[in-house]
Amino acid sequence: MNDKKISIAVIKRLPRYYRYLGDLLENDLVRISSKELSEKMGVTASQIRQDLNNFGGFGQQGYGYNVEHLHHEIGKILGLEHQYNIIIIGSGNLGQALANYTDFERRGFHVKGLFDINPRLVGMTVRGIEILDIDKIEDFVKLMKIDIAVLTIPKQNAITIANDLVKWGVKGIWNFAPVDLKVSIKDAVVENVHLADSLMTLSYNLITKEKEDALQL
Amino acid sequence: MNDKKISIAVIKRLPRYYRYLGDLLENDLVRISSKELSEKMGVTASQIRQDLNNFGGFGQQGYGYNVEHLHHEIGKILGLEHQYNIIIIGSGNLGQALANYTDFERRGFHVKGLFDINPRLVGMTVRGIEILDIDKIEDFVKLMKIDIAVLTIPKQNAITIANDLVKWGVKGIWNFAPVDLKVSIKDAVVENVHLADSLMTLSYNLITKEKEDALQL
Repeated sequence: MNDKKISIAVIKRLPRYYRYLGDLLENDLVRISSKELSEKMGVTASQIRQDLNNFGGFGQQGYGYNVEHLHHEIGKILGLEHQYNIIIIGSGNLGQALANYTDFERRGFHVKGLFDINPRLVGMTVRGIEILDIDKIEDFVKLMKIDIAVLTIPKQNAITIANDLVKWGVKGIWNFAPVDLKVSIKDAVVENVHLADSLMTLSYNLITKEKEDALQL
Repeated sequence: MNDKKISIAVIKRLPRYYRYLGDLLENDLVRISSKELSEKMGVTASQIRQDLNNFGGFGQQGYGYNVEHLHHEIGKILGLEHQYNIIIIGSGNLGQALANYTDFERRGFHVKGLFDINPRLVGMTVRGIEILDIDKIEDFVKLMKIDIAVLTIPKQNAITIANDLVKWGVKGIWNFAPVDLKVSIKDAVVENVHLADSLMTLSYNLITKEKEDALQL
């Protein structure tokens, strides 16, 4: 693998390749041509070849791609052979849903702690992990060498706690609060998930399709 | 508003404008210049002007944008003055989390029903809405004129149920199952939310930042 800078567009597509190859693996497929993969994924074969050439290719003329090898290599590029210690801050339904995703654990993301301010939640356990009071968080993060914090808390608290977490050594923040943390945090990597934005995009596409359908009648 | 085709990149940014303007509204701001807005959002002022010019501008030379008006107009473009009837299929933690987002309701997305196959969940209520057995879904969708279905179910079931839903009149699917429904469904609009992809992007950015930091030492 060479070290030249990969474009964000390519990087954004890598998890999708990883997901499709994982599905093929589950179905015991050994190899696949870029043409077959392109039909499954709804992108062009030349795009697939171009994307994967960024990382040295992996394909063989006349053979295609070895599914297991390509899946493994893309996983490596995505950092999935690392093991990450995770905490989830905000242990309501969304926090518990994330804690329950065993898929994340399989990919090296290990939930070490859950936190909340709500006394009705503190003391409960999710998958054997006790929900702790938020006042224990600083010691916990430092002691347990937490790499990634997941924020499922209101936006008012997200910025403050994110800055504290980075001070305490957290390197990555997976943010579900409806605020763009990227803007205010320099020393960590932030990935924002804005569910409401996604729902609004759906709404836009719905009314646009309705207008188009109406024109075609 | 003119009817020329708007690029996907612009559309993808609209929910973000809407969110920032909503925050400004909450703070009782009456007007804002494209320069001030650009500083808050971390994009260039000229990008903002270009994006909004797609929809006829909204700004006034020397005044800037009226926050409430712009917020309202972007909401209209996003289809948020419509009212949508929603069902959630899969009433585990994630489904319940989505049912509990009062923000969605405020924007016109009304949860009318929750469904699950798990007998331990069926009969429970979330925000006063009873979780129904999945075998009641066909009648319910037709009777209640459901516009949007939210899928928080395993991928094996997602494709089958999505095709059924579209047959029964559902126009939009907000899909949280780890499968790209867009490829297989033609008569409805699909918005996929792939949480695992987002976590893998975070992982990639984490290890890339680590490598870059190591080079700078």
